[in-house]
Amino acid sequence: MPDTWGHKLAEPLFERLTVIGCGLIGSSLLRVARRNNLARTLVAADISQAVCERVAELTLADEATCDLAGAVAGSDLVILCVPVGANENVARSIGQALAAGAIVSDVGSVKSAVMASLTPHMPAGTHLIPAHPVAGTEHSGPDAGFATLFLNRWCILTPPPGADEIAIKKLSDFWTAAGSNVEVMTSEHHDLVLAITSHVPHLIAYNIVGTAADLELVTQSEVIKFSAGGFRDFTRIAASDPTMWRDVFLNNKEAVLEILGRFTEDLSALQRMIRWGDGDGLFNLFTRTRNIRRSI
Amino acid sequence: MPDTWGHKLAEPLFERLTVIGCGLIGSSLLRVARRNNLARTLVAADISQAVCERVAELTLADEATCDLAGAVAGSDLVILCVPVGANENVARSIGQALAAGAIVSDVGSVKSAVMASLTPHMPAGTHLIPAHPVAGTEHSGPDAGFATLFLNRWCILTPPPGADEIAIKKLSDFWTAAGSNVEVMTSEHHDLVLAITSHVPHLIAYNIVGTAADLELVTQSEVIKFSAGGFRDFTRIAASDPTMWRDVFLNNKEAVLEILGRFTEDLSALQRMIRWGDGDGLFNLFTRTRNIRRSI
Repeated sequence: MPDTWGHKLAEPLFERLTVIGCGLIGSSLLRVARRNNLARTLVAADISQAVCERVAELTLADEATCDLAGAVAGSDLVILCVPVGANENVARSIGQALAAGAIVSDVGSVKSAVMASLTPHMPAGTHLIPAHPVAGTEHSGPDAGFATLFLNRWCILTPPPGADEIAIKKLSDFWTAAGSNVEVMTSEHHDLVLAITSHVPHLIAYNIVGTAADLELVTQSEVIKFSAGGFRDFTRIAASDPTMWRDVFLNNKEAVLEILGRFTEDLSALQRMIRWGDGDGLFNLFTRTRNIRRSI
Repeated sequence: MPDTWGHKLAEPLFERLTVIGCGLIGSSLLRVARRNNLARTLVAADISQAVCERVAELTLADEATCDLAGAVAGSDLVILCVPVGANENVARSIGQALAAGAIVSDVGSVKSAVMASLTPHMPAGTHLIPAHPVAGTEHSGPDAGFATLFLNRWCILTPPPGADEIAIKKLSDFWTAAGSNVEVMTSEHHDLVLAITSHVPHLIAYNIVGTAADLELVTQSEVIKFSAGGFRDFTRIAASDPTMWRDVFLNNKEAVLEILGRFTEDLSALQRMIRWGDGDGLFNLFTRTRNIRRSI
């Protein structure tokens, strides 16, 4: 049974960890890597000079640099913590500088598209093992991170067919030591599971907050004032990072549109029940959904 | 400025308060009425014998009875805390037994329909002042209530045109002493405000949890396992009392269908952006919704 609380290792799992992109996820990863001794040397890389300076001020890493290729040289673990749409450019910048045997991973909420954009840039002898820690908050940037972000959260690894078993095991041990529960599945299955548990819920939250903002009959201050009736949860979800979420939807198009199609179909049926006063139909659905909560 | 923490009164505001329906809201109301000395005598009434017995065991009131008409006799404040659809039957049972000058109120999430169903049963000389405390949890029943449920929450009064000003003031003082912030508006405006801040968000939560339950490609255990990605908030909302919510949708049909129409229109536009890869359109919406959260 994994130690779900994470733990400080006697010996680091990796010699040199490079984290590229020091936002909420990347900076949390640096914090837990240092706290739990997951790697001997921590290197932070970000294309923003301001972020690098902030990372240095916060002493989150041993080195902080805007030179991505330089940052990965000699690292045995490189984790891309950038919005999904930025992965390809980063991979192009670092590909040739990667050390032989290096494990390359990411933290993106979409996996098939990430795999497709990273693979062409990985030199032979490196190990690409995409990963998705299912964790986050509505805050962004290096100051928003914290070492316990991944504690007791799932981290899903989606190794491509034929991936090196030892590399999978090492990355799995890394996330376990960071406090996560690790699960392995194909990237296609991941994208479908996340479409329903995360992507479409976010899309719907964004959508209803947008609908509310456009109402001319109800003032925005009223919407905010009475939001405790249910709306508040949606506004929190809809406050997540716009760039990250834009990229999620553009890169998990197929699964999101599939789930969204089912959702609108079901919503039409519900709308019809309301219009025609089908109380039993409503009651039955509401009872069924209540039972799902009880199993969580 | 109202004392938003509620307070124990030196002299009770009412001589005899009857609460009809002792679920989450009714039992919370009894608890705060006792704690803050809002009425000299507390009477609990419920059509369920089991609920009356439980209320007696919990000593939530001075009397607990299944005889609704008997319970309201001599009371200067009567508050109906039953699902919206049950109001008419209750009003029919108690109408003739109401004391002259009594204030009759409710706690329903819908106000125009409640007004329409209660008004015909109110004898001359009684004062009907509908109210809606915007508070609740996903739990139900007399054991689920607690005295601080209404603390710092809004309570919306929707007095009919020409309602007695003194009665409005007394009921407003009652809710203020229970810890709430009181707001007065028309029932029509209330129903529209609540449709967007509460009713449609609930409907959408019910709907997506239902969509997830029907998926054959993703197991229910996976949905539950990875729900921290956003779905979990929806399951909590979708676990609310089925009877209460059925009645809300059947009784606020017009406003809910109006908001739902706008919501699906907006969702179609969003769906189209995803299909055609309109990253700027997505980014702009997500940025706009983020700003709304910041104003909460």
